[in-house]
Order: sequence, then C-alpha cells, then structure tokens
Amino acid sequence: MKEGLLVVISGASGTGKGTVCKKLFETEKKLAFSVSATTRAPREGEVDGVNYWFLKKERFEEMIEAGEFLEWAKVYDNYYGTPLKKVEERLKNGEDILLEIDTQGALNVMEKMPKGVFIFLLPPSLAELKRRIEGRGTETEESLKKRLGAAKGEIALGEKYQYLVVNDEIENAVKSIKNILKAEKLKSERNLNLLEELK
Amino acid sequence: MKEGLLVVISGASGTGKGTVCKKLFETEKKLAFSVSATTRAPREGEVDGVNYWFLKKERFEEMIEAGEFLEWAKVYDNYYGTPLKKVEERLKNGEDILLEIDTQGALNVMEKMPKGVFIFLLPPSLAELKRRIEGRGTETEESLKKRLGAAKGEIALGEKYQYLVVNDEIENAVKSIKNILKAEKLKSERNLNLLEELK
Repeated sequence: MKEGLLVVISGASGTGKGTVCKKLFETEKKLAFSVSATTRAPREGEVDGVNYWFLKKERFEEMIEAGEFLEWAKVYDNYYGTPLKKVEERLKNGEDILLEIDTQGALNVMEKMPKGVFIFLLPPSLAELKRRIEGRGTETEESLKKRLGAAKGEIALGEKYQYLVVNDEIENAVKSIKNILKAEKLKSERNLNLLEELK
Repeated sequence: MKEGLLVVISGASGTGKGTVCKKLFETEKKLAFSVSATTRAPREGEVDGVNYWFLKKERFEEMIEAGEFLEWAKVYDNYYGTPLKKVEERLKNGEDILLEIDTQGALNVMEKMPKGVFIFLLPPSLAELKRRIEGRGTETEESLKKRLGAAKGEIALGEKYQYLVVNDEIENAVKSIKNILKAEKLKSERNLNLLEELK
C-alpha cells in the first residue's frame, strides 16, 4: 500500500483557508480531513471520531506531555489538537489527509512530519486582505491595524513552506492545490517501488 | 521578470523520451527546446541558432575545457552539447527550457543546474521495454540482452531525479509532466517576490 500524502494548508488569517479547503474537500474525493481532538463538550449530533475525538482535559494534557499531538492549541478554556498516531495510521492506510491549520501549528507539523506537503495561501494584495478583514465588520480601527500587522508577520513565514498559492479566485486556488497534489504523487521518494519492480 | 524553468527529461533508452517530449512541445506553447551545439556540418535547410549552433571542432573543445557546456557527448566523430550560457540567458528571460537528454547527460546537468526540474521516464514494465527495443527490429539476441541490461542500469538512476513518470500512454505521461511544471511554478523558492510584495 502506497502511503498517503499529508497535506498542510495554512496562511495568514483572512486569506480564506477555510473556504478553499471546503471546496477542495468537496471536489477531491480521495482527500480526507483530519479529525481533531478537543476537550470541549460534544454539541448535539456530534459524533466521537467523526466531528472530533472528545477527550477529558487530563487525558489531553497527558498526551501533550507525551508528545502525542502533531500540533495543539488552547482556545479560551478548551484544548484542540491533531493526534499524531491517528494521522500516521491513516497515511499508512493510503489515505491523503488534509490539515487546515494556523501558521503556528503548521511550523510544528513541519518538524514532526517533514514528508508532508506544506502549502501557504496568500491574499492577492494587502489591500484585499484589509478589505476581507474589514468585511467581517467586527473590527475597530485599532484592532484592524493590529490584525493586519499580525497578518503581515504571518505572511513572512510563507518562505518556510514548499508552495505558495495566491487565493485570488477560489476556483484557481483549488485548481493549483490539486495540481500540487498530483505532482507530489509523482515524486521519486514516494515511488521508489516502481524502480524496484523494474530491476 | 520571473526566471523560467529548466526542465530535464530523461530515461533509459526505449522509454519513449523523444515521443513524449515532441508531444509536450506541441501542446505546451510556453516551453522551448534547448538548441544544442554540434561540430557536424549543417544539413540542407538547417539554420545556425535554430536547429543547432554549428561550431568548429577547435571551438567546441575550447568550450569543453572552459566548462561552458551543461553537458556534452562525442558521437562517432562529432561533438554534441548544450551551451550553458545560452540556456542561462533564456531562463533569465523567463523562458521555460526543455532538455531531452540521456541519463549520463542528466547527471551532469543536476550538478550544474540544481534548480532544474528533473523528470525520469519509466517504461510500464520490463516486458514492455523489451518489446519496444525488439520492435526496432535491428537487434540480435545478444545485442538485445546487452541493451536490456544497460537499460536496467539506467533505470536504477531514477532515484536521483525529483519525479518519476511512467510512460504507459503518451497522453498520460504528457499530462503528468504538465502537472509537474504547474506545481513547480508554485514552489516558494521561485515566488519569494510574492512575499516581498505583501510586506
């Protein structure tokens, strides 16, 4: 069984990671979202192992200690993270796994999974990024400045990724990402078996 | 001006490099074949700088001495080679340059142009490779064995390339190569200007 691809999609806030990943997921049937673990309570209809892995706080903290997360974060009172073992199992099983994470999480994943495919989404321009952040309509002048400054700092991290994709039109960005995945599947290091078979 | 891609396509003899590159060249308008230099006399209608750069033997040997070839070979009494400077000029000019060369030549290019995109074509199977070599109808039993042995040796070099493409159907192989080129154009190291512009 050929190992699947770990695909990490990240980018500064406001670049449209969520929308691009949703679209990608809809049209690329072989791609599966990674299931995160969380300590927050399940909402109505949420199923353990499908929406999230629901864990007790103590268990989550044990797993942090033991280095069992690819990446994790604490948001207010709850933990969220990607269990390393689950991802590894699915990759071995030939599944391509998509991780949509923030720039800090992605840096951690680069260290733990160097064979992953790291894609960084960019806004077409700073003006457009500003427009998108403003568009949410929840920002004061000051918080907008702060968010834009933070986004610039995140964008500078783009050089650590293998690929840069400008999210001008969602369709274009999705097409580019699909192209990247097809090409990555042709990389020699993922296909040494072909050479073995021809010996 | 964004620098073009140097695309090197190689593979064991009998894998169909020539046919694949011809087809690729027909459909990928932005791709230009590299013009080789040679010491053989121009044939009727051949134009210097279009079909070949026609050089005197002494000049060619001076250029070999000075390391001015990306790769070169002597076939019977004539030299053939790829002038490094010409390729560099065209890449700087934003052209994507295709080099279709044998496995020995490709190894030399890897050393001199590590930023190139190195693609190795594979036959779908050894049986098919044998059939293709036999198909030329010019082989004795012994020379066939020899050629097949040499091809196996060349195939083992595939792991030095970035990409492996199986040439089962020409259309598929061409599509895969086009995919690779699109993805390579999204590589971060080729697009750091995008990050600069967003600063």
